[in-house]
Amino acid sequence: MEKKQSSDSRKEDSRSTGKNQSFGIARFGTVEKTKKSEKDEYFGKVCVIPLGGLDQIGMNITIIETEKSLIAVDCGLSFPSDDMLGIDLVIPDISYLQERASRFKGFVITHGHEDHIGALPYVLKMLNRPVYATKLTIALIKGKLAEAGLENQVDTRIMQYGEYVDFGDIKVEFVKTNHSIQDAAALAIHTPAGVIIHTGDFKVDYTPVFGDPIDLQRFAELGKKGVLAMLSDSTNATKPGFTMSERSVGRTFDLIFAEHKDNRIIVATFASNVDRVQQIINTAAKYGRKVVVEGRSMVNVIQVASELSYIDIPEGTLIDVDELKNYPDEKTVLITTGSQGESMAALSRMAGGQHRKVHIHPNDVVVMSSHPIPGNEKAVAKVINELYMQHAQVIVEDTHVSGHACAEDLKLLYSLVKPRFAIPVHGEYYYRHAGALLAESTGVYKENCLLLENGDVLVFTANGEDVHAEIRERLNAGGIFVDGLGVGDVGNIVLRDRQNLSQNGIIVVVLTLERYSGHLLAGPDLISRGFVYVRESEDLMEEARVHVQNAVDDCLVRHVNDWGKIKNIIKDSLSDFLWKKMKRNPVILPVIMEV
Amino acid sequence: MEKKQSSDSRKEDSRSTGKNQSFGIARFGTVEKTKKSEKDEYFGKVCVIPLGGLDQIGMNITIIETEKSLIAVDCGLSFPSDDMLGIDLVIPDISYLQERASRFKGFVITHGHEDHIGALPYVLKMLNRPVYATKLTIALIKGKLAEAGLENQVDTRIMQYGEYVDFGDIKVEFVKTNHSIQDAAALAIHTPAGVIIHTGDFKVDYTPVFGDPIDLQRFAELGKKGVLAMLSDSTNATKPGFTMSERSVGRTFDLIFAEHKDNRIIVATFASNVDRVQQIINTAAKYGRKVVVEGRSMVNVIQVASELSYIDIPEGTLIDVDELKNYPDEKTVLITTGSQGESMAALSRMAGGQHRKVHIHPNDVVVMSSHPIPGNEKAVAKVINELYMQHAQVIVEDTHVSGHACAEDLKLLYSLVKPRFAIPVHGEYYYRHAGALLAESTGVYKENCLLLENGDVLVFTANGEDVHAEIRERLNAGGIFVDGLGVGDVGNIVLRDRQNLSQNGIIVVVLTLERYSGHLLAGPDLISRGFVYVRESEDLMEEARVHVQNAVDDCLVRHVNDWGKIKNIIKDSLSDFLWKKMKRNPVILPVIMEV
Repeated sequence: MEKKQSSDSRKEDSRSTGKNQSFGIARFGTVEKTKKSEKDEYFGKVCVIPLGGLDQIGMNITIIETEKSLIAVDCGLSFPSDDMLGIDLVIPDISYLQERASRFKGFVITHGHEDHIGALPYVLKMLNRPVYATKLTIALIKGKLAEAGLENQVDTRIMQYGEYVDFGDIKVEFVKTNHSIQDAAALAIHTPAGVIIHTGDFKVDYTPVFGDPIDLQRFAELGKKGVLAMLSDSTNATKPGFTMSERSVGRTFDLIFAEHKDNRIIVATFASNVDRVQQIINTAAKYGRKVVVEGRSMVNVIQVASELSYIDIPEGTLIDVDELKNYPDEKTVLITTGSQGESMAALSRMAGGQHRKVHIHPNDVVVMSSHPIPGNEKAVAKVINELYMQHAQVIVEDTHVSGHACAEDLKLLYSLVKPRFAIPVHGEYYYRHAGALLAESTGVYKENCLLLENGDVLVFTANGEDVHAEIRERLNAGGIFVDGLGVGDVGNIVLRDRQNLSQNGIIVVVLTLERYSGHLLAGPDLISRGFVYVRESEDLMEEARVHVQNAVDDCLVRHVNDWGKIKNIIKDSLSDFLWKKMKRNPVILPVIMEV
Repeated sequence: MEKKQSSDSRKEDSRSTGKNQSFGIARFGTVEKTKKSEKDEYFGKVCVIPLGGLDQIGMNITIIETEKSLIAVDCGLSFPSDDMLGIDLVIPDISYLQERASRFKGFVITHGHEDHIGALPYVLKMLNRPVYATKLTIALIKGKLAEAGLENQVDTRIMQYGEYVDFGDIKVEFVKTNHSIQDAAALAIHTPAGVIIHTGDFKVDYTPVFGDPIDLQRFAELGKKGVLAMLSDSTNATKPGFTMSERSVGRTFDLIFAEHKDNRIIVATFASNVDRVQQIINTAAKYGRKVVVEGRSMVNVIQVASELSYIDIPEGTLIDVDELKNYPDEKTVLITTGSQGESMAALSRMAGGQHRKVHIHPNDVVVMSSHPIPGNEKAVAKVINELYMQHAQVIVEDTHVSGHACAEDLKLLYSLVKPRFAIPVHGEYYYRHAGALLAESTGVYKENCLLLENGDVLVFTANGEDVHAEIRERLNAGGIFVDGLGVGDVGNIVLRDRQNLSQNGIIVVVLTLERYSGHLLAGPDLISRGFVYVRESEDLMEEARVHVQNAVDDCLVRHVNDWGKIKNIIKDSLSDFLWKKMKRNPVILPVIMEV
């Protein structure tokens, strides 16, 4: 199944060194190839289709397709961007899978973060297939399925590192990695065209808090045998150096606890970072403090991790939030959600004085054990402001390490795996571009560093020693909006309306006409929302009404009886009037009732 | 006029060293005082009222009020936050000044940035008074006034450093500082209660590109004589160390130009940073490149600076954008706006392929000569992504220094001035809190470090050696929204409506009733915008209509003839139906026409 990649054969390829030579950037119809060999032995074909995850952080899902099978790597959601007004979350558009349902075999999941598992409850309702993942990941997925009323309706299978899922002409091996959640896996996907490695989100941690370090030996072994392509985490590709071990944070907590022996300590971090919580608990135990875990998502994750013995909580350490009052400040630690400034999370509620059980006071030291994810800076600053206003002390620096590999770590992995093609994933274009530069620096040919876009159907055709790669087409990969219980019933037209409404509000113009004669029986009346403060703008509204009245009268005098036409005339004349008068452009909605 | 501050008298004060002692945080009715002396000699009274600038970056304006006079320090605007839907900009609420118009003497302006001068055209229309500032600042203000049709209608006066404006019982001296725009000034405000220094935005630059370094001697001299209070820039108070000289950036440009001899170079920076532009032009001239300045605001500022000889452009260096095509890449430099990812700025239009005259190509090196202001990170990343997609190279690091003093610079100023009271300004709470810590570290009593809020009326009463400080009241200082030509006609109610509309859209329910009988003549009809994609949700909309119809029928059968009541019943029943059915909450607007 694996294709040995001869280094001699590679050397024969002419290596482009032109300074402005581009990466193999995805475009329709462009073809990136390596040398064609003389013998024409058919070896195999495989398609790699990222349906999401490339233009932003979130909604990770990649399809691997062969003649006989399709599988999906991850099935994440993304949170709406600022212009997606009223949208709760975004899930991938899986119509490509639905159209090929008979060949679609299942989901293989790299780890248990929302942007990799969050869309499963939605997608499995449309297309129920087995889900394969490691132990903690499966446990978290099962929790989600139960919440969505899918308990016992989905076939979930726990995979061990080193184990394969056999999908027929695709076999998927789970390889140990490290990340900011336990049980992360890379996937070695054995296909008729060669091995494709998907790193998932990963870091290199030689001294992880829980479990084993990343299985560098297996990566090397796969590389030695020959790897067709590696899809690699690019989140930190622009960051120089190495990512520190999660364990290094533990030492910092030790220092903070030692320095603040008389204070209550509150630590905010990511709900799913069990190793971080473990280290805070270790330090708390060392200093004889009781620990409260606050925030629903964190309580859930810790519960799951605890049931699997993925976290070790010394007996008597954990107490309920209601017991806090029984202990002096210096004997307690709170571990809480809200490190990204999420407005409904526990820390935000504490900072804003809205938490029912925890009140910030001047003896509190709040440790922000995370970095703001781009876009969250202002929300995080708001929480810090509020904490200071309540006289708490806030420690912002040095209690976080990333879960993603930095530049030197990425070079290490490329050097071990030596893939023929590098496909940077996870992160917006300029991170992935940096990932491609790193791949190139380790010896991947520049034209084999592929910067795909969501929806690109990348086809590898292996033929003896040669591999041919091309983008066959680009699918629509915009994502499906979830708004309340509605999935996909809000699209771009509705969003554009919301955008317009949000900018200048709406004016509804209502009038009643006699059905046959066309006589005006009532109105026109103008009712507005979000336009001006009506009580202080009565003159303006009356002026506008008279303006519309004149336009309508004019229509009726001219016996215009096409109501669509009348509506347009109302719209244009009012819109004109308002723009000239106040340079504003509200949505205008004329309604004609007939009696 | 100045009050000598005896260091002996200070030593007598009991200095609190309690670990959890709070700063003199502004609250109604709390009184922060220093020791009362025995002799009861009335010395003077002064109020300091920040009407803006404290809870965010922007809309800086501080009122200084004595028995006989009021003056305003700066008069800036702020850009709307994300929740101010449809708002173009925010200006200060000056009703406090309007109510005291007879005593209001004029505006003293520290420097020419939007957040310090931008509201002048609006405010001067309401309350026309002389404006005092340094040369470049006045030139920029005049440009704004001309745009607003206020040419020659406002008395503007150019001030030299060291000069005083005499407002009667208030005298304002302009003191040289450095900042990211030329001609920045601190103000030494001599009042009956003592000297108040307002630093404006400043940095300490020993080797500025243009003009003199900050006048540290004058600060020391003022300090030696005794300073009542210092309002000090806190933007970088959380940043350790010193702020580098603007000149250090010049050396970096030299390196970049040397390294990219064959590329076209595009530098994006702040429009108003004339010294930065000067340095880029110097480097360009050194390497024999022609310079194009792109972006309306930058062209304006450079024009003004050029007329005042504040920038030195070697003859033949500047070319028009239309001449670009006559020169090879390696002979040109573009200096452009858009370094903050502003969607309409020149760089964004270039990156998005929408610039009519400049097209990004693979031989371009784009230098981002600025740091993203918090909140702009995503917009900046979008531009960088797009530049990479067009195969340009982007240099993000090391070509920017801040225009604001870092922690050690602030300590220097506090040590020179030794104010009795420290009032950190410019920056949200946690920056100002850090500023207060720095003030305290240099010897200002903790209880004399005042963390005010916008609208606080801080009253200093000097009485011999003693000064009494208290917050008399808090004014409404929310800011006035500007939307199109409307100033102040959009308030919180309208914004809340826009917020609701933006989340789930609107459903208008229209029906026509017979005036006297109350018979239903037409409707109810449901029309929606921004709710669902109607063409694909016909069943839902019909179901909702029937639901409303039943509610209306029920009303009519029960002879409910209070139309307000009918509207409420329609609203409640439809809202209930939609929440149960789809967990959504659109704005519902029932309209009853009577015939």
